[in-house]
Amino acid sequence: MMGGVQFLKGHGTGNDFVILPDPDGQLALTPELVAALCDRRRGIGGDGVLRVVRSAKHPHAADHVAEAEWFMDYWNADGSFAEMCGNGVRVFVRYLLAAGLAAPDAAGLPVATRAGVVRARVGIDAISVDMGLPKVYAESAATVDGRSFTGTAVDCGNPHLVCALPAGAELSTLDLSRAPGFDPAVFPAGVNVEFLVPGPAVAGADLHVRMRVYERGSAETLSCGTGACAVAAVALRDAGRESGVVAIDVPGGRLTSTFDGTTCWLAGPAVLVAEGRITTI
Amino acid sequence: MMGGVQFLKGHGTGNDFVILPDPDGQLALTPELVAALCDRRRGIGGDGVLRVVRSAKHPHAADHVAEAEWFMDYWNADGSFAEMCGNGVRVFVRYLLAAGLAAPDAAGLPVATRAGVVRARVGIDAISVDMGLPKVYAESAATVDGRSFTGTAVDCGNPHLVCALPAGAELSTLDLSRAPGFDPAVFPAGVNVEFLVPGPAVAGADLHVRMRVYERGSAETLSCGTGACAVAAVALRDAGRESGVVAIDVPGGRLTSTFDGTTCWLAGPAVLVAEGRITTI
Repeated sequence: MMGGVQFLKGHGTGNDFVILPDPDGQLALTPELVAALCDRRRGIGGDGVLRVVRSAKHPHAADHVAEAEWFMDYWNADGSFAEMCGNGVRVFVRYLLAAGLAAPDAAGLPVATRAGVVRARVGIDAISVDMGLPKVYAESAATVDGRSFTGTAVDCGNPHLVCALPAGAELSTLDLSRAPGFDPAVFPAGVNVEFLVPGPAVAGADLHVRMRVYERGSAETLSCGTGACAVAAVALRDAGRESGVVAIDVPGGRLTSTFDGTTCWLAGPAVLVAEGRITTI
Repeated sequence: MMGGVQFLKGHGTGNDFVILPDPDGQLALTPELVAALCDRRRGIGGDGVLRVVRSAKHPHAADHVAEAEWFMDYWNADGSFAEMCGNGVRVFVRYLLAAGLAAPDAAGLPVATRAGVVRARVGIDAISVDMGLPKVYAESAATVDGRSFTGTAVDCGNPHLVCALPAGAELSTLDLSRAPGFDPAVFPAGVNVEFLVPGPAVAGADLHVRMRVYERGSAETLSCGTGACAVAAVALRDAGRESGVVAIDVPGGRLTSTFDGTTCWLAGPAVLVAEGRITTI
């Protein structure tokens, strides 16, 4: 079905994607094909698929044609859709730049997504994406192996529960091989759960934290863009700040989250690992 | 370090490999590069690397130059070496055929490995490899979640403990998220643990079993070639047979193991999924 189709593989802090260049929207993607592509042993392997389509060639991007030339047709590894994916946009933009399909834009390079147009800035190594401002809105708790951790509910478009570990506690001691418990009255649609500890001072950042994340309906992952922004929002609040730069070490590398008073920019590396053609999927 | 290097990805019943064509042995592979290639999120992803080198161009294959043109330079995902890998040989031969580097050989296509020369037969869909005869040698037991299962020790070059589940028990109920317990007096170097149940009759096979496997030092995997042969050896013994064809359903698909009185042939699909060039590893 996909024989001969061009693909690339890329990742942002270990959040990895199969990129399918399809400017004219001619690939007949299905949930089954996406799942087969993302199968880590029998396919290419990835957390999701980023299909690169011109906005003019995809019905879901019809409203954005004037504003954004390219539509990020993002699919989760299980073949379902997600509105947005912060690390996905960063890798998507890396591909556009590498392929000569777009150029850095001082005002932010526009990318159409199912959640509307988002903007990306291109740095020397990092690519940043405008994630909007997280909303810190309630206190709650998570349970891991019978231990309860107080946390803060944060809405980044998707729900998060950010738990600061007690002083002296180590992230590595948490058993996240199973989903943490949470209060379904606060999170009726489930929740991504983050745990954080303070990190040592980092040049260029106002705050530095280390985190691990258990993603809703999935597992512990190496990186979660919205989770990093949720953690940064709580760290800034706890420091009595409304803006600032937060360095966030996820298991897959370092992200930074910059709150400029208006929005939150998520920055980090975005790497293209390989490119080629599909033989048999 | 690996920018521009050609690769393929392939698998045999879900046991997957990064294939590196390197006929003249010019790639400077290191454990670190192998681990980076096999990293499932930041690399290509695989259970191991199959470097394709002419025997004449690799010092470890010097003794086999007259017998086998090609040497399978197999590395585990962690950068260590393994002498042999049954599914690996099958995928290796699929690549040689697809690239026109070898042709099917009625006497068995010879492939040099660190364990000596092995032979492969090419069928319509399947590729078979001569695994040698497993040695059934002792009784022992495995423990899963506090339950004890009696089993049989089998030597396939590497150690196996094959446990038939009691009648009516379901493979799916076993929690193999952690390593089964075993008797270190019987298996001082650790052991691969297989669990099997009988399957319904299958055309072309004398016996049919379904199995799951926990690989030593690793985790539960979708397929294990030596494990399938160990399971087939125990199933034949339990059926009072010395030879025959055993169909073995592993989580990643179906293998067959044919005991012809002299040796054991492992057969199954071997698929090339994609090919391309490395960008950044």
